[in-house]
Amino acid sequence: MDWELFLSPYKQAVDELKIKLRGYREQYEMSNQHSPIEFVTARVKPVASILDKARRKNIALNELHTSMQDLAGIRVMCQFVDDIPTVIELIRNRQDMRLVEERDYIAETKESGYRSYHMVVEYPVQTIVGERKILVEIQIRTLAMNFWATIEHSLNYKYEGRLPTEVRDRLQRASEAAFLLDEEMSKIKGEIQEAQKHFALKKIEDHDLKRTKR
Amino acid sequence: MDWELFLSPYKQAVDELKIKLRGYREQYEMSNQHSPIEFVTARVKPVASILDKARRKNIALNELHTSMQDLAGIRVMCQFVDDIPTVIELIRNRQDMRLVEERDYIAETKESGYRSYHMVVEYPVQTIVGERKILVEIQIRTLAMNFWATIEHSLNYKYEGRLPTEVRDRLQRASEAAFLLDEEMSKIKGEIQEAQKHFALKKIEDHDLKRTKR
Amino acid sequence: MDWELFLSPYKQAVDELKIKLRGYREQYEMSNQHSPIEFVTARVKPVASILDKARRKNIALNELHTSMQDLAGIRVMCQFVDDIPTVIELIRNRQDMRLVEERDYIAETKESGYRSYHMVVEYPVQTIVGERKILVEIQIRTLAMNFWATIEHSLNYKYEGRLPTEVRDRLQRASEAAFLLDEEMSKIKGEIQEAQKHFALKKIEDHDLKRTKR
Amino acid sequence: MDWELFLSPYKQAVDELKIKLRGYREQYEMSNQHSPIEFVTARVKPVASILDKARRKNIALNELHTSMQDLAGIRVMCQFVDDIPTVIELIRNRQDMRLVEERDYIAETKESGYRSYHMVVEYPVQTIVGERKILVEIQIRTLAMNFWATIEHSLNYKYEGRLPTEVRDRLQRASEAAFLLDEEMSKIKGEIQEAQKHFALKKIEDHDLKRTKR
Repeated sequence: MDWELFLSPYKQAVDELKIKLRGYREQYEMSNQHSPIEFVTARVKPVASILDKARRKNIALNELHTSMQDLAGIRVMCQFVDDIPTVIELIRNRQDMRLVEERDYIAETKESGYRSYHMVVEYPVQTIVGERKILVEIQIRTLAMNFWATIEHSLNYKYEGRLPTEVRDRLQRASEAAFLLDEEMSKIKGEIQEAQKHFALKKIEDHDLKRTKR
Repeated sequence: MDWELFLSPYKQAVDELKIKLRGYREQYEMSNQHSPIEFVTARVKPVASILDKARRKNIALNELHTSMQDLAGIRVMCQFVDDIPTVIELIRNRQDMRLVEERDYIAETKESGYRSYHMVVEYPVQTIVGERKILVEIQIRTLAMNFWATIEHSLNYKYEGRLPTEVRDRLQRASEAAFLLDEEMSKIKGEIQEAQKHFALKKIEDHDLKRTKR
Repeated sequence: MDWELFLSPYKQAVDELKIKLRGYREQYEMSNQHSPIEFVTARVKPVASILDKARRKNIALNELHTSMQDLAGIRVMCQFVDDIPTVIELIRNRQDMRLVEERDYIAETKESGYRSYHMVVEYPVQTIVGERKILVEIQIRTLAMNFWATIEHSLNYKYEGRLPTEVRDRLQRASEAAFLLDEEMSKIKGEIQEAQKHFALKKIEDHDLKRTKR
Repeated sequence: MDWELFLSPYKQAVDELKIKLRGYREQYEMSNQHSPIEFVTARVKPVASILDKARRKNIALNELHTSMQDLAGIRVMCQFVDDIPTVIELIRNRQDMRLVEERDYIAETKESGYRSYHMVVEYPVQTIVGERKILVEIQIRTLAMNFWATIEHSLNYKYEGRLPTEVRDRLQRASEAAFLLDEEMSKIKGEIQEAQKHFALKKIEDHDLKRTKR
């Protein structure tokens, strides 16, 4: 199997969607509104992970295209918990993709403590041999949820999914700290939004803005 | 005053330093070690902010070059508090810049709650009219410190430095939540480092990695 | 008139199309075929040029959206003259835009000596206030045509469209040299294509390839 | 041999030098002068090519560091033949590298017809284990020389260095056409330079400029 060739439209899809979703941020800034999107990352699932997951979930390689929904992945990070519904609405309203599925792991936190909002969309890519429809998983989360998820992911890899009680407890406390930070941020949000309007108007230095524009 | 021309070597300096410091991250990953650097941002101070600060601090425009140390700014974000000394050491050991000053706002938190480690370096830029030595401020902080600092900066702009008591209190609680997250992360660090080695070895999907490579 | 806001969907359109057309190149390389696309550039027309052209062509500012077709511009550069029809076909076949107009300044060279193939397409952009349909001009040309066009454009600016006879003659000879280079390249094309397949297979160093991937 | 690790400082070197040399262009534009640099590309030699060349030139793998001067390669493209001496001077004057060798294949065209100016420099890279001095080859050439060189390189690969007479002749004619284009450009240069100053002042649309800034 020529993986580079197989994954090529997936790479094209995430490259396009990264530009498309990042564009929102500039539009909000330009109209002096708080942007619900802090930054956007994208990846195509590495071949090792694909093989691993296919084995674990018993997916035949010739069914990957329809049965593995996260070959192409986009992650949208938000400052505040209540930016998330705004991002969901933006995506639902797009005319250039079709919504396939939504999973709300914020309302229903996973047993592990994982929180994120997942959307699966079908996105058409124009290739040199015509249009190809690609499944893309979009994960929407706060910075704090993202921080925690990265760590949980690492630890699960280390322990191959069987976390010792002590690690599980530590992870739990970090999750609570992340949750608390989200809560405090929500309370302070009104103040910040007002401030950011001024901020934008004054065109003051902003490292973070630069980061997402590259 | 032709600001674009005046700031041009500063822009060149931050562009070069961004590439230089980001390079560390790849080197750590390549040797399967935890990278003390999560991501790096850079900016040249906007003209409006320069004028504002010059007025406030009574700096003449023809002395900006020597008296305003943060015209060129680099920010290095770390996952863990104890990554910070590692980054400081990396910068102290560089042969392509001269250390001018260090300020430790982590050991001595600012009254406002601000925490970060600041280094000012003198960095030579080769221009079309010869070498120019440029002051650059490098701020080193954790993700949580950075999150808080961004918010505090916005609020200070809104209230022009005179925060109402209520806002100050909310900001304080957010700062504590950020601090707590840093603490929990420190405790979990050993586990994560081990995990990240495996992580790196297995070349598993990593959005965050991709983000800093662009 | 808030130009930054007005031009914002045009900027988004060219950012998206740049990624989309560049993607073709990688697809051709991946399948070891000669890429008809060498590189792709994009720009939004600068405000000074818009005002200039609006005055010259008597276009009202509230009609820019429909009457100025090159506010958003994409340029596709090809190695060989006969790569151009291949690119035209790729664009005609896309499902994510609507072809509005084509102008063939290669079959019918402009009096000035200008050669290029122009396509105007209507491209939908998803903004924070819903879908917007944007006109985009796509210019397709060889490297030699592009080299000449850049120079002619500069000279026209200098002389405000009224070139002295001597300059016009020099420009003519440069145009002939560019045309001759295109001719020689066409003759050598078969050889090169064969060679490039080997080239790709051997995954040999290729600066030019890297250039377009950024 | 861990090639990724071995080549890592070379990759860092070319990343830094690309930013450094591209910076010149913006500086010239900012001061409304013709830029002698049109664009800059960079590459680390692919492993297959390294092995190939090591075998051909009888270089031991543990001597690559000192005996293969083009592991790290930078290419600077110029519009005009007489931009080349200006670029050479800029590089000779830099304080952040040491000139090791120069080879002038423009004054002394290679038998094959290859024209380019080569400089080999020793460039210090700061790594996580301290400073490393790296050899970098910088090739300086016009757009027309570059076009021809790309083709010659491809054809040599196809025929493994043994070009049939017919191919050699075609290549020769293409080389003459490229040379002629350079000649015509040289004659028109004065006009163009004047025009480009106006061009820059009016801040008129410039695709090519955007290309190198990414």
